Amino acid sequence: MSVSAGVREPYTLQRLLDVAVQVFTERGYDGTSFQHLSQASGLSKSSIYHHIEGKEQLLRLGLEQALDPLMATITEAEALGGPAIGRLEHLVRRNIEILTERLPYVTLLLNVHGNTETERWALEQRRAYNKAVAAVVQEAVDEGSLRADVDAKTTARLVFGMINSVREWYRPGRGTSPEKLADQVLGLLLDGIRAG
Amino acid sequence: MSVSAGVREPYTLQRLLDVAVQVFTERGYDGTSFQHLSQASGLSKSSIYHHIEGKEQLLRLGLEQALDPLMATITEAEALGGPAIGRLEHLVRRNIEILTERLPYVTLLLNVHGNTETERWALEQRRAYNKAVAAVVQEAVDEGSLRADVDAKTTARLVFGMINSVREWYRPGRGTSPEKLADQVLGLLLDGIRAG
Repeated sequence: MSVSAGVREPYTLQRLLDVAVQVFTERGYDGTSFQHLSQASGLSKSSIYHHIEGKEQLLRLGLEQALDPLMATITEAEALGGPAIGRLEHLVRRNIEILTERLPYVTLLLNVHGNTETERWALEQRRAYNKAVAAVVQEAVDEGSLRADVDAKTTARLVFGMINSVREWYRPGRGTSPEKLADQVLGLLLDGIRAG
Repeated sequence: MSVSAGVREPYTLQRLLDVAVQVFTERGYDGTSFQHLSQASGLSKSSIYHHIEGKEQLLRLGLEQALDPLMATITEAEALGGPAIGRLEHLVRRNIEILTERLPYVTLLLNVHGNTETERWALEQRRAYNKAVAAVVQEAVDEGSLRADVDAKTTARLVFGMINSVREWYRPGRGTSPEKLADQVLGLLLDGIRAG
């Protein structure tokens, strides 16, 4: 229960998680050892074990930081009711918000390949999310809000492919705000970039 | 000059490259040893050295398989002349063609982080490519083909973010053809998905 002598300041589980998610992304989950986590956090291995049961629990907690809010947006969109196009807009805006607010966690999620039980669980959640969004796209086509020639599955993939690519260049606090970014993305997706 | 006794059939440099690019993507370039390349290719280390000078040369050859045709499309687009919107369409179509035809090589390119000289060279090339595309987007805005509120740099990033995300789900020979995919992407980008 005591904190290791090598620790400079008290560590919380959240901070351990922040460090672990960074290391997982840099080295890959499989390539990360407890030695790496210990070096990066400044915590002894026994201190790390004081907070968590093992490496996979850290991965799960990290993935939940991205997945929990993302999955919640499906329920939020359902609760909104109204035309599907409005619910789709909500899904896109919230996704961009979550991505920009929780960049390291969403990056971890998007790098998951499915080698462990936890990674397969995360992939299942992502598939459920994509399916729910594709269903809203299809509803928006059926209600006449979206073009009839729109293929719901490919469109949902392309839309989130575009949104998720934002992680490659977006730096929180610099340049475009999340709100402006969401406006740009929605403008492009809904109305395209061709001059009227 | 002789081929190792362990080799089942003659190997060409191209096939060694195909294997190496796969291993680089799975393990990361830094995480790939000559031992890994030897195991994956069935070639002895000395046979590999018969074909190439070192690991970084394989990386460079692999990256060229993606970068050479991509960079050539900039010159192709210039040679086309005519309105910038037509040149932009050419760039998008050719990018999708190259991505789908050379998926493992483009994936390698998109995973580059800049730890070695070769990786930094590849990142520079990508930056030059993005800049050239952003310039064509800006020209298309200036000529009145694209909406005046379109920010060229962000738009170029979002457009190629969407296109590059295709690598995560596209499987050559299955489902949508590259031509149909290009039609869908261009339709979405230019005119959006909202019903007229």
